[in-house]
Amino acid sequence: MNTEITGSGTYEATVERSKKLEQDLTVHPENYRVLTGDRPTGRLHIGHLFGSLQNRVRLHNLGVETFIVIADYQVLTDRDSFDKISDNVRQLTLDYMAAGLDPTDGKTFIFPHSYVPELNQLLLPFLTLVSNAELNRNPTVKEEIQASGLKSINAGMYTYPVHQAADILFCKGNVVPVGKDQLPHLELTRLIARRFNEKFAAENPVFPEPQPLLSKSPMILGLDGSQKMSKSRNNAIMLSATEDETAALIKKAKTDAERFITYEPERRPEIANLLLLISMCTGNTPEAVAEHIGDGGAGQLKKLLTESINEYLRPFRQKRTELESNMDYVRQVLLDGAQKARAVGAATLEEVRAAMNMKI
Amino acid sequence: MNTEITGSGTYEATVERSKKLEQDLTVHPENYRVLTGDRPTGRLHIGHLFGSLQNRVRLHNLGVETFIVIADYQVLTDRDSFDKISDNVRQLTLDYMAAGLDPTDGKTFIFPHSYVPELNQLLLPFLTLVSNAELNRNPTVKEEIQASGLKSINAGMYTYPVHQAADILFCKGNVVPVGKDQLPHLELTRLIARRFNEKFAAENPVFPEPQPLLSKSPMILGLDGSQKMSKSRNNAIMLSATEDETAALIKKAKTDAERFITYEPERRPEIANLLLLISMCTGNTPEAVAEHIGDGGAGQLKKLLTESINEYLRPFRQKRTELESNMDYVRQVLLDGAQKARAVGAATLEEVRAAMNMKI
Repeated sequence: MNTEITGSGTYEATVERSKKLEQDLTVHPENYRVLTGDRPTGRLHIGHLFGSLQNRVRLHNLGVETFIVIADYQVLTDRDSFDKISDNVRQLTLDYMAAGLDPTDGKTFIFPHSYVPELNQLLLPFLTLVSNAELNRNPTVKEEIQASGLKSINAGMYTYPVHQAADILFCKGNVVPVGKDQLPHLELTRLIARRFNEKFAAENPVFPEPQPLLSKSPMILGLDGSQKMSKSRNNAIMLSATEDETAALIKKAKTDAERFITYEPERRPEIANLLLLISMCTGNTPEAVAEHIGDGGAGQLKKLLTESINEYLRPFRQKRTELESNMDYVRQVLLDGAQKARAVGAATLEEVRAAMNMKI
Repeated sequence: MNTEITGSGTYEATVERSKKLEQDLTVHPENYRVLTGDRPTGRLHIGHLFGSLQNRVRLHNLGVETFIVIADYQVLTDRDSFDKISDNVRQLTLDYMAAGLDPTDGKTFIFPHSYVPELNQLLLPFLTLVSNAELNRNPTVKEEIQASGLKSINAGMYTYPVHQAADILFCKGNVVPVGKDQLPHLELTRLIARRFNEKFAAENPVFPEPQPLLSKSPMILGLDGSQKMSKSRNNAIMLSATEDETAALIKKAKTDAERFITYEPERRPEIANLLLLISMCTGNTPEAVAEHIGDGGAGQLKKLLTESINEYLRPFRQKRTELESNMDYVRQVLLDGAQKARAVGAATLEEVRAAMNMKI
C-alpha cells in the first residue's frame, strides 16, 4: 500500500496517532463516540472475534459510547442476493451481544442503517462535496470491484464510501476502529467532514474528523492456512458452530509433512496459524504452545486447538443460545438502537440544514 | 434530440401517450398523483408561469393530487452559493400559492426535500439499480455539465437523476409534467421503478412507472428575444415585479427596425415573442394582436404588452402581496407539506424494506 494513501501523512504517522488515541481512550472514554459495524452477509467467525469484535468489547468495557451500524443496504453494492439479509441482521446481533456488547448499558446501540432515514439523508449533501475523480481514485473500491468480479459497477458500489461517511458522521462518531485496508475510506470521511465544515460551517464546525483506531490483532488465516478466514471460502470456524462441528472442521485443517511442531510463520504458515489460534484462546505465546506440543505432531495440535477454542467459546455460545431463544428481545434491541440512531441523526440533520441555509 | 432517447419508443409515441394521459386526467383525476417541482434558485418569472405553473394549476383544478418538491439539495449540484436557498424556498412557495396552487384543498403538498428523510433514503436502494455506464450516458446531465462550466463533476451532480427518481417515486407519483429535455431523466426513473419491481417485488410491484405529461406551451424567450427567459440573463419579467418595474423592463425590450408590426416568428423573433406574450395574457391570437397594432409600431406594442401583463398579473400580484405579509403561514404550509410527504414516504419505505427483505 502506498504510504501516502491516508492523506494525513504517512502510515507510520497514522500508527503513532492511533497509539496516542488508544491511551487517551482509557483515560477519557467520555470524550469519544465509536462508530463501527459490519455488512450483514453472514454470521461471524473466530477471525472476526479476534480481529474486530473483541476490540469493540474492550472499548465498550472502557465505557466508550458505541454505535454499531449493520450496513444492510451495502450488501447490494456487490451482490444480487438479498433473501437472507434480515436473518443475517439478527444473527449478527446475536454474535455482538453474545460477545459482550451489551445494549442495556445505555451506551451501546445496534441498528441496521435502512431503519435510519436521517442517517441516509446525509448522503445527499455529502455527494456534492466529493468529485467523481476522487471516487475513481479510491484504491479499496478498485480492489473490491476486482474481487467481486462485477461486470458493471453500479452507482451504489461507486458511491458507498460516501455513504460510509454518512454512517460515521450522522452520530458525529470520532473514533473508528479500522484495518489498514479501510484507511482510504476513513480518509474520505475525514475529507468530507472537513469540507462540510469549511464550506457550510466555518465558524461553528458541525462534524468531527474521526480518528482511525488501528487494529493490533494479527490476521487470522483460514483453516486452509492460505488465505483470510472467510465463511464463503469454507475455511472458517463460526462462532455459532457447535463443539462437534468445530472439532470436525479442525480435523480437516491443513497442516504439513513435518511431525515436530514449531512456530515459524514464514516457513510453516498453516501450523503457525493454528498455533496462533490456540495462543489467542489460552493466552500462551504460540512459541510456548509449539514447545508444549513438540513431537505430539499435527494430531496433538488439532486436539489442543479444538479443546482451546471450544473452551474459549463456551460462555459465548451459551449466551448466544440463550439469546436465540428470545428473538423478540433481539428485535427490540435493534428497534431501540434504530430509535436512538434516528434521534441522534435528526439532531445532526437539524444542524446540517441550518448550516446549509435550508431551514424553512 | 435523438428520438430514441425516451427508451419507450420514439418521441412521437411519447407525445401520443401523453395526449391520451391528458384526456384520462380530466375523466379520472382520482387515479393520478402528480409529482412536480423546481430547484429553489430564484423567484419565478412569466416564462415559468406560462411554461409550467399554469399547467400545474390546471391539474390542481382538475382535482389531481399534487406533490410539489422544492429540490433544495439539488441547488448544490452545479453551484457553490447556498446563502439564498431558504429565502428562495419561501419565495417559490409564494409564487406557487399566488398562482393558484392551494394547499388548503388537502390535495396539494409543497415541501423542500431536505425535510423529508424518507424520500432521500430511497436514493440508497436506487443507486444499486443503476450502472455507472448508464449514468455516463444521460444526455441531459452531459449538457448541464457543459452549461454549468464546472471544472470537475461532483458526485451529487453525477447521481442527481437517481435522486430525482426518489423525488418522484417516494410518493408513487404516476404523472410527471415535463419538457422534452427532461425525458431522459424521467426515463431513468421509469427504469429504476421497473428494475426495483422486477428484482425485489415481482409479485406485488411497489412502484408505478410514472408517465410523462408533455407541456403544450410554447417556449417564451427573454425580452432580448434571443434566448430563453431567465433571471440570470436579466431578460425576465418576474411574477413578483411591480407594475412600474414591469413597464421599465419592457421599455428596454429588444425589437427591430421595421415600424409595421407583423407576427413572423422565424424572421422577427423578438417582435413575435412580445406578441406571443400579449396573446398569452389576453387570449387573442398573436396574429390578431399584430393586426390590431399595425403601424402603431414598437412603442404601441410595448405599451400594450405592459398593460396586458400588468392586468393579467394583477390578481396574482395582489394575492402574492397578501401572502407575503403572513410568512408564518407560508412556513406552516411547507412544514405541513413536509409532514405529509414524510408520512407518505415512510409508508413507501416500509414496503421497500419488506420487499428487500430488510424488515427486522
